[in-house]
Amino acid sequence: MFQPEAQIARCEPTDRAARFARTRALSEALAAPLSDADATIQSMDDASPAKWHLGHTTWFWETFLLRDHKPDYRLFDERWPFVFNSYYEAEGERIARGTRGLMSRPALDRILEWRAHVDREMAPLIEDETLGPLIDLGLAHEQQHQELLLTDIKHAFFQNPLAPALWDAALPATKTLSDNCGWYSHPGGIARIGHEGGGFAFDNEGPAHRQLLEPFALSSLLVTNGEWDAFIADGGYRKAALWLSDGWAWVCQNHIAAPAYWREDAHFTHAGWQRRDPAAPVTHISYFEADAFASWAGYRLPTEFEWEAIARGRGSPSEIHDPHSGNQLDDAGPVIPAGGGGLFGDCWQFTRSAYLPYPRFAPAKGAVGEYNGKFMSGQFVLRGASCATPRGHSRKTYRNFFYPHQRWQFTGLRLAKDT
Amino acid sequence: MFQPEAQIARCEPTDRAARFARTRALSEALAAPLSDADATIQSMDDASPAKWHLGHTTWFWETFLLRDHKPDYRLFDERWPFVFNSYYEAEGERIARGTRGLMSRPALDRILEWRAHVDREMAPLIEDETLGPLIDLGLAHEQQHQELLLTDIKHAFFQNPLAPALWDAALPATKTLSDNCGWYSHPGGIARIGHEGGGFAFDNEGPAHRQLLEPFALSSLLVTNGEWDAFIADGGYRKAALWLSDGWAWVCQNHIAAPAYWREDAHFTHAGWQRRDPAAPVTHISYFEADAFASWAGYRLPTEFEWEAIARGRGSPSEIHDPHSGNQLDDAGPVIPAGGGGLFGDCWQFTRSAYLPYPRFAPAKGAVGEYNGKFMSGQFVLRGASCATPRGHSRKTYRNFFYPHQRWQFTGLRLAKDT
Amino acid sequence: MFQPEAQIARCEPTDRAARFARTRALSEALAAPLSDADATIQSMDDASPAKWHLGHTTWFWETFLLRDHKPDYRLFDERWPFVFNSYYEAEGERIARGTRGLMSRPALDRILEWRAHVDREMAPLIEDETLGPLIDLGLAHEQQHQELLLTDIKHAFFQNPLAPALWDAALPATKTLSDNCGWYSHPGGIARIGHEGGGFAFDNEGPAHRQLLEPFALSSLLVTNGEWDAFIADGGYRKAALWLSDGWAWVCQNHIAAPAYWREDAHFTHAGWQRRDPAAPVTHISYFEADAFASWAGYRLPTEFEWEAIARGRGSPSEIHDPHSGNQLDDAGPVIPAGGGGLFGDCWQFTRSAYLPYPRFAPAKGAVGEYNGKFMSGQFVLRGASCATPRGHSRKTYRNFFYPHQRWQFTGLRLAKDT
Amino acid sequence: MFQPEAQIARCEPTDRAARFARTRALSEALAAPLSDADATIQSMDDASPAKWHLGHTTWFWETFLLRDHKPDYRLFDERWPFVFNSYYEAEGERIARGTRGLMSRPALDRILEWRAHVDREMAPLIEDETLGPLIDLGLAHEQQHQELLLTDIKHAFFQNPLAPALWDAALPATKTLSDNCGWYSHPGGIARIGHEGGGFAFDNEGPAHRQLLEPFALSSLLVTNGEWDAFIADGGYRKAALWLSDGWAWVCQNHIAAPAYWREDAHFTHAGWQRRDPAAPVTHISYFEADAFASWAGYRLPTEFEWEAIARGRGSPSEIHDPHSGNQLDDAGPVIPAGGGGLFGDCWQFTRSAYLPYPRFAPAKGAVGEYNGKFMSGQFVLRGASCATPRGHSRKTYRNFFYPHQRWQFTGLRLAKDT
Repeated sequence: MFQPEAQIARCEPTDRAARFARTRALSEALAAPLSDADATIQSMDDASPAKWHLGHTTWFWETFLLRDHKPDYRLFDERWPFVFNSYYEAEGERIARGTRGLMSRPALDRILEWRAHVDREMAPLIEDETLGPLIDLGLAHEQQHQELLLTDIKHAFFQNPLAPALWDAALPATKTLSDNCGWYSHPGGIARIGHEGGGFAFDNEGPAHRQLLEPFALSSLLVTNGEWDAFIADGGYRKAALWLSDGWAWVCQNHIAAPAYWREDAHFTHAGWQRRDPAAPVTHISYFEADAFASWAGYRLPTEFEWEAIARGRGSPSEIHDPHSGNQLDDAGPVIPAGGGGLFGDCWQFTRSAYLPYPRFAPAKGAVGEYNGKFMSGQFVLRGASCATPRGHSRKTYRNFFYPHQRWQFTGLRLAKDT
Repeated sequence: MFQPEAQIARCEPTDRAARFARTRALSEALAAPLSDADATIQSMDDASPAKWHLGHTTWFWETFLLRDHKPDYRLFDERWPFVFNSYYEAEGERIARGTRGLMSRPALDRILEWRAHVDREMAPLIEDETLGPLIDLGLAHEQQHQELLLTDIKHAFFQNPLAPALWDAALPATKTLSDNCGWYSHPGGIARIGHEGGGFAFDNEGPAHRQLLEPFALSSLLVTNGEWDAFIADGGYRKAALWLSDGWAWVCQNHIAAPAYWREDAHFTHAGWQRRDPAAPVTHISYFEADAFASWAGYRLPTEFEWEAIARGRGSPSEIHDPHSGNQLDDAGPVIPAGGGGLFGDCWQFTRSAYLPYPRFAPAKGAVGEYNGKFMSGQFVLRGASCATPRGHSRKTYRNFFYPHQRWQFTGLRLAKDT
Repeated sequence: MFQPEAQIARCEPTDRAARFARTRALSEALAAPLSDADATIQSMDDASPAKWHLGHTTWFWETFLLRDHKPDYRLFDERWPFVFNSYYEAEGERIARGTRGLMSRPALDRILEWRAHVDREMAPLIEDETLGPLIDLGLAHEQQHQELLLTDIKHAFFQNPLAPALWDAALPATKTLSDNCGWYSHPGGIARIGHEGGGFAFDNEGPAHRQLLEPFALSSLLVTNGEWDAFIADGGYRKAALWLSDGWAWVCQNHIAAPAYWREDAHFTHAGWQRRDPAAPVTHISYFEADAFASWAGYRLPTEFEWEAIARGRGSPSEIHDPHSGNQLDDAGPVIPAGGGGLFGDCWQFTRSAYLPYPRFAPAKGAVGEYNGKFMSGQFVLRGASCATPRGHSRKTYRNFFYPHQRWQFTGLRLAKDT
Repeated sequence: MFQPEAQIARCEPTDRAARFARTRALSEALAAPLSDADATIQSMDDASPAKWHLGHTTWFWETFLLRDHKPDYRLFDERWPFVFNSYYEAEGERIARGTRGLMSRPALDRILEWRAHVDREMAPLIEDETLGPLIDLGLAHEQQHQELLLTDIKHAFFQNPLAPALWDAALPATKTLSDNCGWYSHPGGIARIGHEGGGFAFDNEGPAHRQLLEPFALSSLLVTNGEWDAFIADGGYRKAALWLSDGWAWVCQNHIAAPAYWREDAHFTHAGWQRRDPAAPVTHISYFEADAFASWAGYRLPTEFEWEAIARGRGSPSEIHDPHSGNQLDDAGPVIPAGGGGLFGDCWQFTRSAYLPYPRFAPAKGAVGEYNGKFMSGQFVLRGASCATPRGHSRKTYRNFFYPHQRWQFTGLRLAKDT
């Protein structure tokens, strides 16, 4: 099994310098099994090449830290911002998203040189407390791209009939324990929602505010592959009545009949084709599928507020999983599962909440302010964290978001009901 | 000016029979200026031919009332359900939406014969109280299609370089009175939202429930054409920072630079090209445009709950427009404006609320239950009513919904702010 | 049966005035069974509304004759050229081809008024010998659109699940007589090709020139529906080896498994769904299909030069069908079949010749010169004439042309072989 | 300058073994400057990755020689035929053409191992005279892909804003000498066309046959960049009258205003952006452009028969360029120009002949027979050879073919006129 941990010093980083070093190293460790060619390809518009993720995260540091805050800093290569800017309109022109996979140059090793250069240049800035919030944003940003790097390369390898493997073992999914079955119930009332207090959070997690909830219960278990098999066996993909209108059109046009990456009783993983575990949480489903399954099962999806209320421990039972005890991407590879189908670490969980601004939300000023607010139309919120989420990146207030047809992330579901 | 009122008995209908007669007559009065060819064409997938609206509403009566509740009823033509079903999966196959405009047969006069036939057959059922709720649904359904008939034919006529006119005068828009300027303020707190008590409402308007609001204010005025001119003049359509990401892509791909139907200082109306009134409410904008305008103006869009809270009269000032006093489609044509830019009757007003189910919402059983719930992804809620909404069809709890790029309805906006 | 002949004076027109009157009357007779709505719809980009055909042909007379050659003539409506110009770039802007089906105005009766007006205005010009060639071009142009009107409305009616019929009887196809079987053989040598001598011809039929032929034979019979059934039964549509590469892609992408308009043992006709006659010539096939059939049968398609050489009577047997004795659209409706599967009158016959200019071909000057030359890429030549070709419009030198995937015309095939 | 010649033994190969060795070595020499990532990317459906070219040519040898003719041969990797088959339907399934650029595996060095393996295994077969024709086909096939490898990587590098260079110098284009100006005239008559006698030729070059020509003349010079500048300056790309109808649509939809790879007075080459030489032949134009230019210049394109008749030396002057004396890809890189704008070695020259079978053409049996015949619809023939054509691959009877909009090859034009 791939063991990049051996190459990276382990520590519980309390200072930024150590977190910076570990985060930067993890990106490179994740890409270590990739050839220059592997790191270049792009299998769909939604995905980006691994090389691009390595470069774009570096562009962030070079642009918003070094360029803006280090006098006399000169760009490593003046032409690269055009290649590695993603969607920051305020930062100027950039290549069309769909052509990222044509950038055979700069080569992977050149990008690694750039990374090393930027890391060295960052050293004097890293302890500057006034830059602390910006650095924390950069670290969170890089962690997001670590997860995308993994899901994007999985999608790319899946296109290859030779079914390449990144690692010897797939990212682990917890096997649900039967004695863990039950519901987290909540009596309703006014709940506190959103990030508050210390620590980093994205702008979209605030402001903290009140939300009125009706009594409800949230399943303590994730829906499993085996339960999804039953949905399929019952004709779930052929019954229009179960589906949202847009979902049914998506099913018909794309001939959808199973989660992504499924084939008979196997599924494609970072370790190639593997037998599917019926007791493991289902992943790689779209919102449309999650919603249809919930209808079929006679339940519903939770709102993001219900999910957070439970996660904050206001519900019962109180044994909610600690965000740091579940499965999540360890420093650089698959970790030992913690067991139990926790709120964090197996898969992102769809909520029925559209991705919209919280009351009194206001984007930050400048290019960094383009960060999250501008995606607030047409998407749904997912909560939790997946097996590909870097450890330390998850929060009870974290809001992930995707369009209702997207499913190349480790997306699953947890049912809810009115009580 | 076209005066179909003269042809239809005016009354304040208290009984279903009278409302049925008036509603059915209004559909035909709206279509009266159309030739068979006018009533056949379809100018985009979002729109339907006028003939189809006349037939589809009739299909509703024939299917859910006559077929299901009148013993021995035989279909007027057994092949027509295939042509005039819209999206009710439970009712079987139907023609592809994009080919509705190829149905030159049945001819308009044949459809009018069908309407007369169905109206006659409906007579014995209309006073059956057990069918009351279904009949009310059918009436509300037909009123929805009356508005669509008007907006769809406007879009179709707009494609014609000869710029045909339906009427001698455009549907009226209230000229905003300057002394009416101000904000409806609300102190926040728990508001009651959703339909309750007597009278008809669509399933998506309930269940009634509580919603927690923060203090806010809602403009008493709609944004006007003149204000929109200022937005354009300030480069509103060229500043990416004002736009949602999907909105900016939509602007660029479609070369959007003004509301739909605008050309220089004129706009296309049901009476052909007319000079634009700067003091009238802007219409035919998308959610993307409404959101960008609000950002530009330094305000935001209201949530649908804020809008409803004001409409329910819990805010101040209390002089909220009665839903029946504003401009709205009179029985069969343009009405005299009531003045003031009311909550109802000028245009549908975008909210920043995604179209989602209320707590404990459950669709009705059977084909009728496909009605509203299955559209709950990717759309935004609009509140109020437009100049093309039939009088009597609007409610404080009414939830209209469209995708964020759509703008062929009479859509406008009313700003909100935190207080 | 529809008998429009009764309405139109029959004569063998030797003078232009009579031919003009008959041709103009035939267009209107063909459209007589159509409602305003029927005449408005457009079922695909390749097709045009009947109303458009009636208007466009009239636009030709008004533009190139009345406007250009009649002093003080004023346009019937100045806005109509924009609507009814087709592809003449030199004549200015025009509506996008795909939106012709949205022109519910001008109404059919308005176009008929225009036709009557133009016919009256044309009277003084019709005997002007200097305008003779231009008038003959206008007549031939109008005849082309008569055939298109018929094939376009057939395609449009086919989209309608109600399967409307234009006439009581389909256009007739000759039943092949078994004793007529055989080959027209040709010894090869230098053949004379192209129009020469008197009478009208399109520019693409000349200049007359020499062409060297190798010995060959051309079937005296058209391929029949029954033979096509055998091709299907033998898996013809599933054997990639029989198909051109572009053809195979077309088959796969469009799920092609039979000629257009086929369903089980019926086919859609101008008289609605009718039982297919196995002995009648197959029609509504693409070049791809014709070529695949010929490969399957062990023969090939003829070149256009071979076809013309036989048609000119240089081959044997000499009993080649007279172009005026086969089935062809009589003045205004289905005619009695002449029998035998003639070179003319059943269907257009694909040749393996690309549509290219003859040696020393030069387009005419001005807008009229845009006529045929600018289509000389990517298309194949068809020879003969179909049952929908107006009588008098066919010639031995006539070159029809379509893209290899198109098949909404009455297209069939006649096999050839080397000898 | 890149000098791969130094690495490859030079000889005038008279025996197959030497030709095999040189051809195989040239493919690898051409790819030598490429990284694994460079060799993986695919910039459009028309192009293929360099790695795919290297693999597909090897697949040809392994399939049609080793598998079919060497007892007990085992495939190097059983999964690779699926990846490296191109369009041979008879050889089974293959990956969708548009996804070739996602094959980051097998890696470039693995493909080179495959090549070495196949080369070794081929040794005992290479002198087998019965396999001679098949081996010659394999060599010609590999040479075709050498040219495509060069034009495809040029297209891919062009997409990269960093503008990578393959070599230090661009492929050379002859500077036209002014004293070489003139016309090759031909008196007309029956010409012999097509391959005959000894030596290899593709199936589409035969059978040899007679063709009747009218008197004509062919320019001794290729159209130059400078002449094309004049065409642009005169509004050539804005005058619809100069263009074929499909060509004009292509110009408008794609905003075409210059040959591919042009920018101001530079053009993109295998050596990156270089200043354009006005005296060098224009390249990278489509058939549509070639045809429009000829119309603008008052001439026409030659037919492929005219071109061949001149090339065969039947015209005058007799000093037609030897196919082996012009510019052409030397063993592995740019060569010294021979001067004069020869028939061979500067660019492929469009003819006005559609790509169709010669009289009595019949495809070979089996998968190899899919070679050329199945592309005979919709394409035009080009004659000559370009600077990227491997030396020894050109012939007077060679028929290259492309769709009329394609222009990523080194395509140019030579004018003709009637005499």
